[in-house]
Amino acid sequence: MATLCRPSVSVPEHVITMEETLELARSRHADHPQLPLALRLIENTGVRTRHIVQPIEETLKHPGFEERNKVYQAEAKARVPAVIQRALDDAELLTKDIDVIIYVSCTGFMMPSLTAWLINEMGFDSTTRQIPIAQLGCAAGGAAINRAHDFCSAYPDANALIVACEFCSLCYQPTDLGVGSLLSNGLFGDGIAAAVVRGQGGEGIELVRNGSYLIPKTEEWIMYDVRETGFHFLLDKRVPGTMEPLAPALQELAGLHGWDASDLDFYIIHAGGPRILDDLSKFLQVDPHAFRFSRATLTEYGNIASAVVLDALRRMFDEGGAQHRARGLLAGFGPGITAEMALGHWHSPDDRMA
Amino acid sequence: MATLCRPSVSVPEHVITMEETLELARSRHADHPQLPLALRLIENTGVRTRHIVQPIEETLKHPGFEERNKVYQAEAKARVPAVIQRALDDAELLTKDIDVIIYVSCTGFMMPSLTAWLINEMGFDSTTRQIPIAQLGCAAGGAAINRAHDFCSAYPDANALIVACEFCSLCYQPTDLGVGSLLSNGLFGDGIAAAVVRGQGGEGIELVRNGSYLIPKTEEWIMYDVRETGFHFLLDKRVPGTMEPLAPALQELAGLHGWDASDLDFYIIHAGGPRILDDLSKFLQVDPHAFRFSRATLTEYGNIASAVVLDALRRMFDEGGAQHRARGLLAGFGPGITAEMALGHWHSPDDRMA
Repeated sequence: MATLCRPSVSVPEHVITMEETLELARSRHADHPQLPLALRLIENTGVRTRHIVQPIEETLKHPGFEERNKVYQAEAKARVPAVIQRALDDAELLTKDIDVIIYVSCTGFMMPSLTAWLINEMGFDSTTRQIPIAQLGCAAGGAAINRAHDFCSAYPDANALIVACEFCSLCYQPTDLGVGSLLSNGLFGDGIAAAVVRGQGGEGIELVRNGSYLIPKTEEWIMYDVRETGFHFLLDKRVPGTMEPLAPALQELAGLHGWDASDLDFYIIHAGGPRILDDLSKFLQVDPHAFRFSRATLTEYGNIASAVVLDALRRMFDEGGAQHRARGLLAGFGPGITAEMALGHWHSPDDRMA
Repeated sequence: MATLCRPSVSVPEHVITMEETLELARSRHADHPQLPLALRLIENTGVRTRHIVQPIEETLKHPGFEERNKVYQAEAKARVPAVIQRALDDAELLTKDIDVIIYVSCTGFMMPSLTAWLINEMGFDSTTRQIPIAQLGCAAGGAAINRAHDFCSAYPDANALIVACEFCSLCYQPTDLGVGSLLSNGLFGDGIAAAVVRGQGGEGIELVRNGSYLIPKTEEWIMYDVRETGFHFLLDKRVPGTMEPLAPALQELAGLHGWDASDLDFYIIHAGGPRILDDLSKFLQVDPHAFRFSRATLTEYGNIASAVVLDALRRMFDEGGAQHRARGLLAGFGPGITAEMALGHWHSPDDRMA
């Protein structure tokens, strides 16, 4: 069975607090007619700190799409290998044991993807498959887990490496002044996560079923406007309300497995914003405490896009994990609007032997 | 067993001939010191005609990255559904039978990917998985086939839809004047291909094994320079020589299956340029006639990137396919430098019963 092992997570050294974010919004948008609304929305995120790859003064400049992509590439090369190495160590595997690298990132664009450089630089085997995904946004963390699960189902002795590298601060667009943009400027953070899905052995979440769900006719609710200045993130104000149609999709998937999504032992959920967690608690009738890992990620790092679910899972490992065979749900949400969902058991070799 | 069914292919209505391409190169680059070399390289491609989504006068303009992406999106929406519908019809399936859409395209960028729009527009089930890949370039056709194979191995009753949509003409960069760029301007064409991989049933190539190979330390040989003006294609002059290191990788994969890559019944190869086919013929010691499908694609359509392998396969279907159980090799090559390779048997339900 495919087991999602302990994720390794790294956030950059430059920190911006909620107070600094609010102060920036006030000083830069003093004349904005909807400034009070924007400030209230930012405060409501509950994001206390975010980590970014450059000092805030640099982040606020826009040196052009080309330069931004160069920064993306340089920072990814400088930071990603160490995160991968820790994930491999935690899974007790070597680079040669990896059969596929699933690299997800929507905040910079390279062709070839970083996978080619990683294979060369870190000494992965030349036969390692590469699955780079740039267009699933925040849902890509869940998608990466699910595609790794599928791969290990097809090849039960294979191991998959997942890497989520998101430098959302490199998509800051100073000229975007809609309320959704001002909110996004206070919500997203940077982070890198990596995790191994082992085909055999390992401690973590034994993946048992996955699924995807697209809310009909919402493909323009979360999207990039692609321009000379790079990716412009568009966030429709209806997005925070999407847990109402997505909760039944989570229930449906759990039901296919004979489980009840309202009655599971753990939840690892993409914390896109505070309302996602509040609403999911309400629609699934689950105690908010069950979402503490996701809430902590949001509070301490902001929305780090596809890396959120891996960071939330890392926090669950830090708390000691769960009882052997505890049942749980993972879900990433992003553009489409797409939910990438997975069901799994906590798998703890020690407990099993006890 | 996963069976790759008949691909459906469509090329746009605007045609540019080799003579027109050479004349354009002469008139636009009259003062270029390496014009004679560029003209010779273009002539050597053997590309007689290419099809492009806009008239040549429009193609030669650069209206900006934003506008180009809008054209990409509009043309993809106008042209892709009919190609998919034919692929479904040929596989005798309905949209509701499809479990995953693998959409590969490196010549435009959208988030969400076109998959979200396709699911809504064509009525695919909301639970259809989306695997959009933008960063594998010309290798993505092979990668799509291989990921579809993996998916059907994990879920033997599942069906995968592959879509390759490439409008290379929308990546024309008038200011790129290197010899590699002038050659590329005469080599690449536009095309859309779609094919279904059926988990059960179907006529076509029964996929039995796949593999990937990255030539070490070549990640900068084929790449995009990402700029305000969009994707700038960089082609190293060492690329045409890459069949020498890749032929052994093809042999290796075949050997793992007890096959000899030099002695197969059919070959569906990415025709990136004429030397790829010539060299593969030499290094694998295979009669050039075996590459007739790939050669015909190159001659009539140019290099249509990830769609090449699907078009070459479509031509093999048009020729009547092969004997039941005939053994063959498929391969896509692209940035990395990556080869995505597959082995399969021709599967013809009628022959089997005869």
